[in-house]
Amino acid sequence: MENSHKALGWAARDTSGTLSPFDFSRRATGDNDVQLKVMYCGVCHSDLHMLKNEWKMTRYPVVPGHEIVGVVTEIGKNIKKVKVGDKVGVGVIVGSCHKCDNCANDQENYCPQNIQTYNSIDVDGTITYGGYSDIMVANEHFVIRWPDSMPMEYAPLLCAGITTYSPLRHFGLDKSGQRVGIVGLGGLGHMAVKFAKAFGAKVTVISTTIAKKQEAIGNLGADEFVISKDPEQMRAIAGTLDGIIDTVSAKHPLAPLLMLLKTDGRLVMVGLPENPLEFPAFALLSGRRTIAGSAFGGLKETQEMIDFAAKHSIFPEIEIIPVDYVNKAMDRLLKSDVKYRFVLDVANTLKA
Amino acid sequence: MENSHKALGWAARDTSGTLSPFDFSRRATGDNDVQLKVMYCGVCHSDLHMLKNEWKMTRYPVVPGHEIVGVVTEIGKNIKKVKVGDKVGVGVIVGSCHKCDNCANDQENYCPQNIQTYNSIDVDGTITYGGYSDIMVANEHFVIRWPDSMPMEYAPLLCAGITTYSPLRHFGLDKSGQRVGIVGLGGLGHMAVKFAKAFGAKVTVISTTIAKKQEAIGNLGADEFVISKDPEQMRAIAGTLDGIIDTVSAKHPLAPLLMLLKTDGRLVMVGLPENPLEFPAFALLSGRRTIAGSAFGGLKETQEMIDFAAKHSIFPEIEIIPVDYVNKAMDRLLKSDVKYRFVLDVANTLKA
Repeated sequence: MENSHKALGWAARDTSGTLSPFDFSRRATGDNDVQLKVMYCGVCHSDLHMLKNEWKMTRYPVVPGHEIVGVVTEIGKNIKKVKVGDKVGVGVIVGSCHKCDNCANDQENYCPQNIQTYNSIDVDGTITYGGYSDIMVANEHFVIRWPDSMPMEYAPLLCAGITTYSPLRHFGLDKSGQRVGIVGLGGLGHMAVKFAKAFGAKVTVISTTIAKKQEAIGNLGADEFVISKDPEQMRAIAGTLDGIIDTVSAKHPLAPLLMLLKTDGRLVMVGLPENPLEFPAFALLSGRRTIAGSAFGGLKETQEMIDFAAKHSIFPEIEIIPVDYVNKAMDRLLKSDVKYRFVLDVANTLKA
Repeated sequence: MENSHKALGWAARDTSGTLSPFDFSRRATGDNDVQLKVMYCGVCHSDLHMLKNEWKMTRYPVVPGHEIVGVVTEIGKNIKKVKVGDKVGVGVIVGSCHKCDNCANDQENYCPQNIQTYNSIDVDGTITYGGYSDIMVANEHFVIRWPDSMPMEYAPLLCAGITTYSPLRHFGLDKSGQRVGIVGLGGLGHMAVKFAKAFGAKVTVISTTIAKKQEAIGNLGADEFVISKDPEQMRAIAGTLDGIIDTVSAKHPLAPLLMLLKTDGRLVMVGLPENPLEFPAFALLSGRRTIAGSAFGGLKETQEMIDFAAKHSIFPEIEIIPVDYVNKAMDRLLKSDVKYRFVLDVANTLKA
């Protein structure tokens, strides 16, 4: 521990989820590690779930944050991927087994042994702490090279970005002429619209809130907007979609969404509701439809995504906030009162 | 109606589902029609659902039966596909729109306008009657050439066969080295085992009933048998299966099945439970798993299946029964007391 780094973060101590300053230490920068000064960290909806122990797995104190962008301040002796001063990102995971089929296939995201960026047990037995903190130390394999042309505050690409990019790619919804539905227009949903449009798809936003129509079509470039609770609007597009990216992380009915799909259409869940979801088997059988799930992405694909986003100027819509606003931000997030992602200005506002 | 054919069938008149003799008429054999004398008709679990109006769509009187094998007795003037005296089969549907993408892709099974072999409204506005009857008239497109080497009593291939063959093919489970789970060892399940083995897959039967182990491995050739209610047995094969064909048509938990799948594994429902099914989103997201549905098959694929079954001697296990035993057979079917499919010996036992 002699070379370990003193770190300052914000942590929640109990299921109230209230965050406050927290002193801890980061491990010394190992031979294969990269140390970075955190500049920005996105506020993901899963942070909120985790703060309040809604997934029954929180280890308190918990320092959330897995959309981390910073500048390299120290590197281990084996590191060739980046140098001091480079911009880098750290996303949802900081470790995996490197032995299983998932790891061999660049899908560390599905490695059963992967180590989440916070609230996981690290290789050294300590609990991992996320990016609501001043510094970060991570194995280089889990460090993304951040493109110079990409402003560092667009950290949400590292979770919201890859979580929507990956299923659009994997399920073949990344082609011109595909008709793609996006359910929910929050942190994930608005990125799904942007990526699907960049791939040339025709995009239909499916929402409960008419107020989002102008945003969806006017600002984000969606082609079509339907209210999920209006049976007539839903019927009008029945059987027309090749795929749906469902970003809603609360329990919601799937049958009306499934009926929008063509034969062989895919409904891909990327949100993680606490409670089980229901579907009528008929909605699947009648068109060989599928319900799938997809969780963020592997490291290779995350780098590909960030390079694609830089090349095509695909930026999250964000509201930059000081660290001491984070509890208020969580309240607003719970009410979906954000367009579309809060980002903590860590470097300028995290003070001892 | 002057040339219409008198027909004798067995019908249910109400939700008791009790079947009894029923006189009706078949349309005159049109230019594109084939008339057949029904020799055998399989008793499908969906007949039982329909008799009792469990899917809330039964039109009484209902003459069930969609696994029909017979001999051609008359053909319309445009028919070249078969001649009088040929053996033929009629399966789940007798009509479709011939205009939609599904029809264009030889997937009449997913045509929203398709006409079921019984309990549907036919092109002439009458209700279709199924194969629990002495004669049948059907458009040639929906008539299967029955191979000479295939005994006619193996009529269940026309629903139980294609319903399991099609998803094994479509979802890539038809290759040597694939590990396939089969849930439920009834009319559908036992055919799924036989086809999966013929494709070279390694087959695991997943059942609630230890009594089926000897059957599954000894008689049907499965490689492995696990009890779904034994967490230890289930844990031992967690993450090992490429796909599962789930034939259970009652409500049942999906989470334990999903955890048996590898990354990108597919759980394919082919049974049609009345009530919605539940799944935890985590079980999908944690391995990009999918839940799919598949419903019988198109006509081209059904012909391919029957030719494949003939070539490889894949026969359903059946119990041949006289028509007047059918009500007792339904009682036994409800208790899964059949190995594995009842087949009505229509030609020899249907009497006025």
